[in-house]
Amino acid sequence: MRVEIISIGSELLTPEGVDTNSLYLTKELNRLGLEVQLKTTVGDEEEKLIDAFKSALLRSELIIATGGIGPTGDDVTKQAFCRAIGRQMTLDEEVLTYLKDRFVRRRKPFPSHFQQQAMVPQGSLVLKNPAGTAPGVWIKENQKDVILLPGVPREMEYVFQNSVLPRLQKMLKEPQILDRRVFKVVGLTESEVDQLLKEEIAELKGDLILLAGWGEIKVHLKVRGKDNEETERIFDRYETRLHEKLGSHLLGRGEVTLAGVVGELLREKGATLAVAESCTGGLLGSRITDVSGSSDYFNRGIVAYSNDAKIEELGVPKELIESHGAVSPEVAEAMAKGVRRLSRTDYGIGITGIAGPTGGTPEKPVGLVYIGLASEEGTKVERCFFLGSRKKIKFLSSQKALDMLRDFLFPK
Amino acid sequence: MRVEIISIGSELLTPEGVDTNSLYLTKELNRLGLEVQLKTTVGDEEEKLIDAFKSALLRSELIIATGGIGPTGDDVTKQAFCRAIGRQMTLDEEVLTYLKDRFVRRRKPFPSHFQQQAMVPQGSLVLKNPAGTAPGVWIKENQKDVILLPGVPREMEYVFQNSVLPRLQKMLKEPQILDRRVFKVVGLTESEVDQLLKEEIAELKGDLILLAGWGEIKVHLKVRGKDNEETERIFDRYETRLHEKLGSHLLGRGEVTLAGVVGELLREKGATLAVAESCTGGLLGSRITDVSGSSDYFNRGIVAYSNDAKIEELGVPKELIESHGAVSPEVAEAMAKGVRRLSRTDYGIGITGIAGPTGGTPEKPVGLVYIGLASEEGTKVERCFFLGSRKKIKFLSSQKALDMLRDFLFPK
Repeated sequence: MRVEIISIGSELLTPEGVDTNSLYLTKELNRLGLEVQLKTTVGDEEEKLIDAFKSALLRSELIIATGGIGPTGDDVTKQAFCRAIGRQMTLDEEVLTYLKDRFVRRRKPFPSHFQQQAMVPQGSLVLKNPAGTAPGVWIKENQKDVILLPGVPREMEYVFQNSVLPRLQKMLKEPQILDRRVFKVVGLTESEVDQLLKEEIAELKGDLILLAGWGEIKVHLKVRGKDNEETERIFDRYETRLHEKLGSHLLGRGEVTLAGVVGELLREKGATLAVAESCTGGLLGSRITDVSGSSDYFNRGIVAYSNDAKIEELGVPKELIESHGAVSPEVAEAMAKGVRRLSRTDYGIGITGIAGPTGGTPEKPVGLVYIGLASEEGTKVERCFFLGSRKKIKFLSSQKALDMLRDFLFPK
Repeated sequence: MRVEIISIGSELLTPEGVDTNSLYLTKELNRLGLEVQLKTTVGDEEEKLIDAFKSALLRSELIIATGGIGPTGDDVTKQAFCRAIGRQMTLDEEVLTYLKDRFVRRRKPFPSHFQQQAMVPQGSLVLKNPAGTAPGVWIKENQKDVILLPGVPREMEYVFQNSVLPRLQKMLKEPQILDRRVFKVVGLTESEVDQLLKEEIAELKGDLILLAGWGEIKVHLKVRGKDNEETERIFDRYETRLHEKLGSHLLGRGEVTLAGVVGELLREKGATLAVAESCTGGLLGSRITDVSGSSDYFNRGIVAYSNDAKIEELGVPKELIESHGAVSPEVAEAMAKGVRRLSRTDYGIGITGIAGPTGGTPEKPVGLVYIGLASEEGTKVERCFFLGSRKKIKFLSSQKALDMLRDFLFPK
């Protein structure tokens, strides 16, 4: 079923106008296996609304609109809809009685402009709204279903849960569940992941999408099933396929972090880690210690920002810095080895580079970073070149360092 | 001018799909006196996009679309737009050269599918995007302006600020300006700021609002004027008043950071700093080194996560840890003094605490943090107690440490 949402209200067209109603409705519709294919946000202007309804009726079979059905002059949704389909408005006596009763109970006179709230498109099913004064309406037009709901989130949610959801469930013969998972991938670029998963992307079309972040790619996967058990089975199946294609680059599902995965690998081995950072300035240590319990494997970090510190704290030979420069594979290696030796840990990481925006030279440009990983097997150094802001270069450097250790620790 | 925004991306049609790009664009367009009249959100589907562009061209004179111009197979915005208006795509040699150059600089082969990124609608003005690979394009069609921008917020903002905004300003004859500034305040609570600024808040009503963040308060100020010069004069006037009321707690405008202000104060004095961190795990060093040029005053950091590291790297007496515990004012003091002495800097900071969520005891609960600041005048220790997640406690600890130093350095 083709579904769309129209969000009505001039406040939604301001810089602060986050349309939470459509997010709520999307979540609820997804749970029924219905996907939202388009959203329109429009102000309280009758002509624009008429256009919006006309276009929606050409495209979609289920249209849910929120907002603009209150008692004030700028609430024109119902009128606009009637003009769009050429239908009359009619007074709903039951709604009028309910509204008048509210005023009687508050011992206040009934304001005549409230009568507008009891006017509904002819042939409407009225959806009661005890949380407020504006009832929702459900109209069949040309085999299509149009539902007009209040814009106040609490009222919209009440009417949706109590009057819309049960009817939608009945309409759908085989109710389906649509569920989503996010998988994180590290150590590959977006286009590498795109290439490796091209079969799955072709097979699943819009149900598998890639989103690139700093140093990681998120794979968003959407599946349908008759219940949670079935969707979970399908996720498991795809996770296995992703794992086959991406190998250990697939970090895992959802909230998993690279520092957390590295921590687990260290913990499994009973191994310990120390780090020596220059251009990242402590960021690597901070990310490692964002993981609760990291004191079990993280021993210490040395932020050797000055050359003095590299020499004094890490035992990097002064001559090495003089002959190769502080940003060099030799110094990265000496930093990694030094911090490992001095802290007596199983692994040592050394990072040295130029985070910019100043300090670059033609030979050693901003973004050039060397990362060393020392273990009992020796020391491996990688030359990296990152583009972006100072913060991004720092982050990508720490990400690469963690990923080198992850790759090294991962059972082959 | 009738303006509308089309937000493209299947992820925007999910329950989590908050469309921040359209909010940003709305804010920027509002500043030029342009109001957004309609927004459409649509997935990465060619047929739907063609429809969306056709409808938009019937309604609006300025259409800004974001998303779907990347290198992967599901990026179809440019093709869809060309099909909507019946125009051909053409290869832009300049973009191709730029893209190839990026790969050369990273010493990676140029993937053939990246060529797609250099294809633009015929007659496009190409809007450079040094923040990423997908350039924006600006097309004139039937007296109407259509602008296609990247979907990655940072890239979209870059292209908008540098290539779109200046051209829009030229297009508009009498721009009326509404401008916003944010001022940052540290070392005071929200209600303290509220009390100190109560006159200004009453005078400016909704145009001056306070927003509390982690360890800082943001004062949002909105003013109107006929041009930038006039709004700038008004901002200056209010900044003076804020300064009178808030003193050195007023950090400054907008993008100013606490670490940047501390750095400036150190630089003015020609003074140097070293830090010793336990519970913050390197975050303090990382924040200090987020500031470009921080190597001028930041000498080193020691992330003394284990007790061994505190003893070996900072010379904290073993007995001190045994008698008072690692989280104690005595150890904070010894860490600050130790790192200052060993690195021969003017100032030393020591932080020790319990970031949680585990590791707390009734006597030393999660959130208890001691911060020491050592200088030639002696060492000052503050006992802090922070509430919140592990990450929040880490951040607030680093914030407090920086604020102690700021307060100490600020000319009295």
